[in-house]
Amino acid sequence: MNDKTAPRPGGRSARVQTAVHSAVREIQKKFEHERLTVPSIAARAGVNPTTIYRRWGTLDSLLADVALERMQPEQIPEDFGNLHDDLANWMEAFIDEMASDPGRAMLREVLGTQGHACTGKCDNYIRQQIEVITKRADDRREKSLAVDEVVQFIVAPLMYRMLFSDETSKEKEIESLIRTTISNTE
Amino acid sequence: MNDKTAPRPGGRSARVQTAVHSAVREIQKKFEHERLTVPSIAARAGVNPTTIYRRWGTLDSLLADVALERMQPEQIPEDFGNLHDDLANWMEAFIDEMASDPGRAMLREVLGTQGHACTGKCDNYIRQQIEVITKRADDRREKSLAVDEVVQFIVAPLMYRMLFSDETSKEKEIESLIRTTISNTE
Repeated sequence: MNDKTAPRPGGRSARVQTAVHSAVREIQKKFEHERLTVPSIAARAGVNPTTIYRRWGTLDSLLADVALERMQPEQIPEDFGNLHDDLANWMEAFIDEMASDPGRAMLREVLGTQGHACTGKCDNYIRQQIEVITKRADDRREKSLAVDEVVQFIVAPLMYRMLFSDETSKEKEIESLIRTTISNTE
Repeated sequence: MNDKTAPRPGGRSARVQTAVHSAVREIQKKFEHERLTVPSIAARAGVNPTTIYRRWGTLDSLLADVALERMQPEQIPEDFGNLHDDLANWMEAFIDEMASDPGRAMLREVLGTQGHACTGKCDNYIRQQIEVITKRADDRREKSLAVDEVVQFIVAPLMYRMLFSDETSKEKEIESLIRTTISNTE
């Protein structure tokens, strides 16, 4: 926060700041309500609102569906013969995709939508892919990881870093995180 | 995803889905552009647009400021005499606040805004608080943790869980995560 944004309380500068901040909040609130309603979507799509309610149930469920269309995995993670390589290759491709412009737009939409429908589906897709990888390691009689361990120790830190510090983790860092996690959970 | 949302391609049902999805995207796009502009904020706030540009520089910087007003910590984390208790108490209060309705609204705003200004400030606030805690442990000649380790192993998994699975971690789980992290990094 630079100095310009912390004006002396009570002064002209503080009054401007209050007025501008309130304006932003009012506009945001107004459009948050007006922006997307089932009737407005129905009118633009040329369908009956009841069609939307019947098929999607709620507006939130429809929005989740739209945001997550691109998130649904098209294929199962490739088999590289061992747990470390399977995880590293899947994770690197996943982070690449999420950090791309359309990936970031999708995450903004998913994380900016009220309710749990969007984020829950997103988490499910991630867990489904991890489950394929960890089950394959079990089948090979390799030491494997629980899906929760992969989410907690590998996916979460990489996701936090991408979302909050705007840095995309490099291949080497992803691989080192995976190696550490596998050896720590021995 | 339930069966209702995966209609046979080419049928009436698929056409409805395509039309509704396009409508949602068009409306979202339209309002994304119309919603917040410096002139509209200036008009509503009763100030000159140049005032806004002069003070905040860009629209993104103003939006970051508004969203993060409530995020700025009001006090430094309380001193409980040791690293584990300092981290546990701060983390529990932080997660409580973020998982509340206004906390979630703030996170949606921060994570739903394009660009890095909002999320970067949010990450900075978190790191500043952690730094106070880890420095205090250093001063006590306790074994401490790096700020990055706290973010990666404690903040990131709790944040992921709250954002993506809508579950708020319980005190016991937070404390166990902190204990494990402190002993793993020995």
